[in-house]
Amino acid sequence: MSRGTVSRYVNGERYVSAAARESIEAAIVKVGYVPNTAARNLVMQRSQAVGFIVHEPHALFVEDPNIGEILLGANTALSEADHQMVVLIVDSERDTDRVARYLSGGFVDGVIIVSARANDPISRVVERLAVPAAYVGHPPGASTASFVIIDNSGAARAITERLIGTGRQRIGMIAAALDRDSGADRLAGFTAALGDRFDERLVEAVPLYSYSAGRDGMQALLERAPDIDGVFAASDAVAAGALEALRAAGRRVPDDVGVVGFDDSAWAKRTLPALSTVRQPAAGLGRQAALLVLDQIRGVSAPNEMLLDSAIVWRDSA
Amino acid sequence: MSRGTVSRYVNGERYVSAAARESIEAAIVKVGYVPNTAARNLVMQRSQAVGFIVHEPHALFVEDPNIGEILLGANTALSEADHQMVVLIVDSERDTDRVARYLSGGFVDGVIIVSARANDPISRVVERLAVPAAYVGHPPGASTASFVIIDNSGAARAITERLIGTGRQRIGMIAAALDRDSGADRLAGFTAALGDRFDERLVEAVPLYSYSAGRDGMQALLERAPDIDGVFAASDAVAAGALEALRAAGRRVPDDVGVVGFDDSAWAKRTLPALSTVRQPAAGLGRQAALLVLDQIRGVSAPNEMLLDSAIVWRDSA
Repeated sequence: MSRGTVSRYVNGERYVSAAARESIEAAIVKVGYVPNTAARNLVMQRSQAVGFIVHEPHALFVEDPNIGEILLGANTALSEADHQMVVLIVDSERDTDRVARYLSGGFVDGVIIVSARANDPISRVVERLAVPAAYVGHPPGASTASFVIIDNSGAARAITERLIGTGRQRIGMIAAALDRDSGADRLAGFTAALGDRFDERLVEAVPLYSYSAGRDGMQALLERAPDIDGVFAASDAVAAGALEALRAAGRRVPDDVGVVGFDDSAWAKRTLPALSTVRQPAAGLGRQAALLVLDQIRGVSAPNEMLLDSAIVWRDSA
Repeated sequence: MSRGTVSRYVNGERYVSAAARESIEAAIVKVGYVPNTAARNLVMQRSQAVGFIVHEPHALFVEDPNIGEILLGANTALSEADHQMVVLIVDSERDTDRVARYLSGGFVDGVIIVSARANDPISRVVERLAVPAAYVGHPPGASTASFVIIDNSGAARAITERLIGTGRQRIGMIAAALDRDSGADRLAGFTAALGDRFDERLVEAVPLYSYSAGRDGMQALLERAPDIDGVFAASDAVAAGALEALRAAGRRVPDDVGVVGFDDSAWAKRTLPALSTVRQPAAGLGRQAALLVLDQIRGVSAPNEMLLDSAIVWRDSA
């Protein structure tokens, strides 16, 4: 039998006769052949794998339910296209260098990136190697890479307006992660909603979208502005922390202070009272980013930017 | 210059003279050489990558802080040994088949597995291929693979005894995930602690270590045994759900009912009141599993089983 026939069989192509198929299968059983996918991919110049780079501060990776939803959304889309998603965690300088080497080593055909920051070395490597890539959120700096996003500014403006509509007079914000555009955009939306009534002393900037940052931020606001009666927290975890600080200070929610969050993550339904918040389509963000990367791998023309819808979910905290 | 000298240089070996090194580096700059790691690894029969297989029900992956801690612990240990951790998510049948193919394709040198269940097809593939492997928790069935574990039964017994010591008379358990040994062992420890006082009507079995399972389980216990005054919840998330059900039923914690959990995850410090629980060394479990795999990859003799310590952390819920 010719090498060509065996090769067509092994690669799952057509044009292999039933007789040839039977003899090949008998031979495979006899010699115990196992296809070496790494070797085959090397010849094909493809790995059928897509990297998913998670670059989050330690505490957030552990407690942010959005990351899990984004991961699972991307995994489902890649799985349907028979691609293996490999999650690469960047948690230290050493990780950054090694992940960059991994990306340049031919192990993945494309990459999804969440939480990129300005001057992210991983993003520079992706750009230099011209690996098919899509970001969840804006890509850093002058990058022209594809991305999937929600309208953080518009959604923040809408929920702040809704909070204003409940009659609150002194509305503040716990603004988180201002070094990322999700954080900066949410502050911009808040500022726009308040217009002339905006008072910068009612904004407390905290480093992370985390529970403890929310608790600390709320304490600072209460000290500076004891008459505060409304708070937009930049994420649900931040809002949950703020609720703890308000409770400790003897303020009732929503009676004394109305609180709204952002994400509609698992947190939102678990706080007491349950949070009024913005629903982010976390699984959808992961799914669309995966589809953008797959299109690039296949050489199909794909949109450079996708905007997904968010929605206000009004519960009991305001 | 000989091919051997260049090869020794590229592979970072010794015995390359300073003069040879300089000429090679000049030549590399001139031709723009980039090492193809996939090709080199194919020849070396190594990928310098270790898979980390997460096989969790959807909701748990998103909300269980332990998974994140285990992942980060393993990532740190592998990173220190200059190995790339690649996380592979199994969320569907399709994923199972594809991950099995990926493992047999030479992309990883070893694998860490969490949450394996009896007859897990991934575990069967790992066994058949004889990939270096370590489990967090007991490996399934008759597997002789290495594993890292805590004494679930002993820890459950100790915290139940502590709860008995607070004077509770009618102590129940919300037992979760009895199809895994962590779940079955925690129930065994609870049963042992109560001895003659064990009453099977005070045990409610729920499928998952989740918040909603805890809430539903507590409701069922309250209906069946309104005089219940103590509860051991099989995890902190389960305990948090139980607190919600108790609150809805107008029971005060710890005054009317004492509640204890298991994990000491981020949940434990956030519930009201904060949970008395068992501290699991989640990052340590990931780290030790990674070290066991690395030893196997290097052909170093390694223990087959490692038992890590847990501890009782007593707060306000009992």
